[in-house]
Amino acid sequence: MSAPPHVVILGGGFAGLDAARTLAHAPVRVTLIDRHNYHLFQPLLYQVATAALSPGDVASPIRWILRGQQNAQVLLADVRGIDTAGRQVLLDASAGEAERVIAYDYLIVATGATHAYFGHPEWGTRAPGLKSLDDALEIRRQVLLAFEAAEREQDEAARRRLLTFVIVGGGPTGVELAGALAEIARQSLRQDFRTIHPESARIVLIEGSPHVLGAFAPHLRDAAKASLQRLGVEVRTGSVVTTVDAEGVKIGDERIAAQTVLWAAGVAASPVAKSLEVPLDKAGRVQALPTLQVPGHPEIFVAGDLCALQQNGAWLPGVAQVAKQGGAHAAKNIIRAINGQPLASFHYKDYGNMATIGRGSAVAEIGRLKVSGVIAWLMWVLIHIFWLIGFRNRVAVMSEWAWFYFTLQRRVRLITGERLWPGAA
Amino acid sequence: MSAPPHVVILGGGFAGLDAARTLAHAPVRVTLIDRHNYHLFQPLLYQVATAALSPGDVASPIRWILRGQQNAQVLLADVRGIDTAGRQVLLDASAGEAERVIAYDYLIVATGATHAYFGHPEWGTRAPGLKSLDDALEIRRQVLLAFEAAEREQDEAARRRLLTFVIVGGGPTGVELAGALAEIARQSLRQDFRTIHPESARIVLIEGSPHVLGAFAPHLRDAAKASLQRLGVEVRTGSVVTTVDAEGVKIGDERIAAQTVLWAAGVAASPVAKSLEVPLDKAGRVQALPTLQVPGHPEIFVAGDLCALQQNGAWLPGVAQVAKQGGAHAAKNIIRAINGQPLASFHYKDYGNMATIGRGSAVAEIGRLKVSGVIAWLMWVLIHIFWLIGFRNRVAVMSEWAWFYFTLQRRVRLITGERLWPGAA
Repeated sequence: MSAPPHVVILGGGFAGLDAARTLAHAPVRVTLIDRHNYHLFQPLLYQVATAALSPGDVASPIRWILRGQQNAQVLLADVRGIDTAGRQVLLDASAGEAERVIAYDYLIVATGATHAYFGHPEWGTRAPGLKSLDDALEIRRQVLLAFEAAEREQDEAARRRLLTFVIVGGGPTGVELAGALAEIARQSLRQDFRTIHPESARIVLIEGSPHVLGAFAPHLRDAAKASLQRLGVEVRTGSVVTTVDAEGVKIGDERIAAQTVLWAAGVAASPVAKSLEVPLDKAGRVQALPTLQVPGHPEIFVAGDLCALQQNGAWLPGVAQVAKQGGAHAAKNIIRAINGQPLASFHYKDYGNMATIGRGSAVAEIGRLKVSGVIAWLMWVLIHIFWLIGFRNRVAVMSEWAWFYFTLQRRVRLITGERLWPGAA
Repeated sequence: MSAPPHVVILGGGFAGLDAARTLAHAPVRVTLIDRHNYHLFQPLLYQVATAALSPGDVASPIRWILRGQQNAQVLLADVRGIDTAGRQVLLDASAGEAERVIAYDYLIVATGATHAYFGHPEWGTRAPGLKSLDDALEIRRQVLLAFEAAEREQDEAARRRLLTFVIVGGGPTGVELAGALAEIARQSLRQDFRTIHPESARIVLIEGSPHVLGAFAPHLRDAAKASLQRLGVEVRTGSVVTTVDAEGVKIGDERIAAQTVLWAAGVAASPVAKSLEVPLDKAGRVQALPTLQVPGHPEIFVAGDLCALQQNGAWLPGVAQVAKQGGAHAAKNIIRAINGQPLASFHYKDYGNMATIGRGSAVAEIGRLKVSGVIAWLMWVLIHIFWLIGFRNRVAVMSEWAWFYFTLQRRVRLITGERLWPGAA
């Protein structure tokens, strides 16, 4: 009897993790490789960035999640490249080891996406995006430091600049960040300062298209915009950011002086896609076959944000549900291939779409049901808690939220990291 | 009517915070300056380093703690120096502001202590100590990375080195770290790996004096040592570390190859003490008058780990209780000075001493009561929860502990930080 086929999965996000779990009882050996030791519950990452949840509430060690799956091994490694001809993956050098190759029979590439700055990579150091836990801690740090610097500042114009927060991008992440920043300024920090009035902070949400939350039905977009404005957020739709620099941002000729600029706009597929040496779309994503296979490589599958696929004439969105279903589908197709069965095409089943603006305010589209306000928000809370990886995280998040929504206090307002002031000597 | 006297407090640890609170109803203006925005509950910091608690569980924003105290302002700043002749403190430049001076009428210096490496500052980059939240996250990172690297390692000797953990210093912090590391290896990680057996990890606690927990009664020291050994910790007393390098450590001629070396030995007072320009002791601490005043500067007080003071012929230890009582005493003496009353000498009231070794195991000395084992551990749990700053942190820590002590799982096993492997290219 020969050794069972080796399935290597790159990425422990929603796609990679669901792929691994789908293979739990298949006659294969699974190796899941990620450069973080944790699976991140990305839909709640903005709550870490805005001091409402701890990193440990939205992330769990991947090897802990898969501890009971005996056919799966988890490796912490940065993938340096894929040798598609030799069917092997090249890993970085670790503390103990030299560079190493891992051979595969089947490969699932699910390394996701990162931020893209519209062809201005230099904006990246100035305007952090929100993809990893470290990103979230950096945003938390910059936001809290801006209020601290303002409390020390004696010049009125400089203080206004410190208390101006610009969020670029009006999709769900941008809307959630803007709403949470408004709540921090107007509610959580109200009593804490003696010189500044945190509630006077200016929060500007900039979106290039005519609407925030463009993926939602028109009346839900309008409800979201009205909710943001009630929280005191300046919503600037149809506005394209042309410059991001030390002073702040420019929209055409208009300058907005801001210490803090957060990026929630473009995304680009992980650079691992390039080493597959197949045609990529503008965002660097792999144009997969309907079976999720990579053209010319029947043993390689893609899933999640790295995968570009059309369904009914529209591109599938980069959301958790598409990633989870895609990862599971790729794994099932591998089982079919091993059993000599024909592979099936992927059909995404859309369970709906939701975004939250603040406490008691959200929009939700689930099939023909389209709601906004408190009811949408309660649905959002329940679905996100139900979805969280691990019972313990569910309990922790519920208890944090109960505290937070009753007291308006954000408990995790900690400035960590070695540098003290950004840009200071 | 003249402006109320301005009391400046440097440091928001146990001493500085209790000083500020003691002045809540005094006719003074208080400015508390710290280079972190949080007060840290240091006695539980090792639980962050060992993945049992989140940073947010053991730290609270200082300005949140003092939000209701209207005569107190909190500033985030690094203190660059003290101009004792001009009675002003020099702060660093912040994001908005140039360097700045703050004038004081009374000054309380409570900036605490940092690690000291027995005259080998170069060991510091190799062997992190445990003073700040960033230290704790770095230790957590290094410990978890060592297990991850071992899982990838194929050479047996290299793997043993990766799974060897050395803790230098057998005081309470060293004992707590060693006990927790043993629990991680033997319990928390047991099911998670496929190549290595985490329970085979070697944990070595090195102490220069003949006993661990030297401050405790002889039979408690012995109980602690026996507890550590039951957890599988190698306890090496009477052993002095002579080298710390890339390979590991040396005790005389004996080499211990270890990837992870943690420092829980010497401490040195914060460098702010130097700018007072008064005689310091060997550890850099200010030799205060019994009133906690600095000799020659009746308007300057010291408290906490920065202050060297004898009582009944023995030096007061660097523990939280001494700091809290010292900070409050300095504040009361300032009120006396303002009222034209004679100042009082500080008398430390010793409420006892405890250290924990692991789940269900601790030692405690409270007056004539000297206990070890489960009873001491239950006392430790109750006292530490009772003491925690803030109701919310108490609830969070209790719930984490309940989970952790029943399941043996450490929930916060996250590797954060930008670099992936220490020492790798």
